Amino acid sequence: MSQSPSRLQPTVRTQLKRLPKRGRYETEQIYQILDEALVCHVGFAVEGQPYVIPTAFGRIGDRLYLHGSPASRLLRSLQAGIEVCVTVTLLDGLVLARSAFHHSMNYRSVVVFGTATVVEPIAEKVIALKAFTDQVVPGRWDELRSPTEAELNGTLVLSIPLSEASAKVRSGPPIDDPADYALPIWAGEIPLRLTAQSPIADPQLATASVIPDSVQNYQRG
Amino acid sequence: MSQSPSRLQPTVRTQLKRLPKRGRYETEQIYQILDEALVCHVGFAVEGQPYVIPTAFGRIGDRLYLHGSPASRLLRSLQAGIEVCVTVTLLDGLVLARSAFHHSMNYRSVVVFGTATVVEPIAEKVIALKAFTDQVVPGRWDELRSPTEAELNGTLVLSIPLSEASAKVRSGPPIDDPADYALPIWAGEIPLRLTAQSPIADPQLATASVIPDSVQNYQRG
Repeated sequence: MSQSPSRLQPTVRTQLKRLPKRGRYETEQIYQILDEALVCHVGFAVEGQPYVIPTAFGRIGDRLYLHGSPASRLLRSLQAGIEVCVTVTLLDGLVLARSAFHHSMNYRSVVVFGTATVVEPIAEKVIALKAFTDQVVPGRWDELRSPTEAELNGTLVLSIPLSEASAKVRSGPPIDDPADYALPIWAGEIPLRLTAQSPIADPQLATASVIPDSVQNYQRG
Repeated sequence: MSQSPSRLQPTVRTQLKRLPKRGRYETEQIYQILDEALVCHVGFAVEGQPYVIPTAFGRIGDRLYLHGSPASRLLRSLQAGIEVCVTVTLLDGLVLARSAFHHSMNYRSVVVFGTATVVEPIAEKVIALKAFTDQVVPGRWDELRSPTEAELNGTLVLSIPLSEASAKVRSGPPIDDPADYALPIWAGEIPLRLTAQSPIADPQLATASVIPDSVQNYQRG
């Protein structure tokens, strides 16, 4: 049997109507984009009023995890089981065309639709907290002191299935109007990267602390 | 009379309930964050279903401008005058604490609430399109061929007032539990920057094209 890559079925919400060639439904590509991102934007509506909140997240298999204080408006709203839209955007470059009209950006984004459920079992909560930490700095979890029972109780963890999701990708040079290519205007791409600068040690660092390689040589993407 | 900086009145929607010390309402700081960003995340709800779409934007004075194809779901929905939430997030660093619980991020974000109106006058539309282009590469507009009437008619421009907005800022080292400072765990910040790589010329570049200084030495923030 041939091994075909896993692909999500487009739905009314995830099917791209405009520029459909930018749409991607392979889970491998969706997961890669999610795993490279540090922040997602979570959208939800309360009585027609939309909210968009930036927050950290983690992924384990085909589920996305969010966490925070049980007092946060975001988590309080989501745990009621309302519809949520989670969007992740990686900006790869600025696309400079000969006309303003054809200026664009190169990017990889993922949109996830679904409803969140509260993660109750302590064991699953710990695994999700590890995913949040390792999403930011791979391997970081193993360097830390273990979470206390009070911390676990004080953290609300929500889980969203990655069953209704799609990615959108643009790459490459600008697409100009045919007549404009003759113009003496510079056109092309300015690639962008999220780069780590030298780590700044906490002023209250214990003298025995050694900077781990994962921090010293931190890289993204 | 003393010149006090302009400050927005917090509303039920923009008042930070948790971590209120991170809240900022001075327009100068809100505008700075908006002007440094390349992408915003626009949230809206249609029959309770939230959508969060990443898109470019521009600012002129106390108004935010969005644009796109009149066929896009985003713009079609917004021009009906529904409530919108626009969020901009600048990620400044990863905050590594001694416990997973106190890991955080340094960031500057802005949330804007309001309703969008369609920009009809061609003159205002042109000024908004200039703002979109110059938001990405300052001065770029003046290097381009002028927009055609067909392009102007084919671009929907929406305007959102910046009257109900707030910023949220975190900076500095981690805040750990007092007992944890003695642990021999490295803690501190990994600063992050969106950096421009060397520009890539369009393979179809006209030979007379010279790369402008704004592109050659592009920097953000």
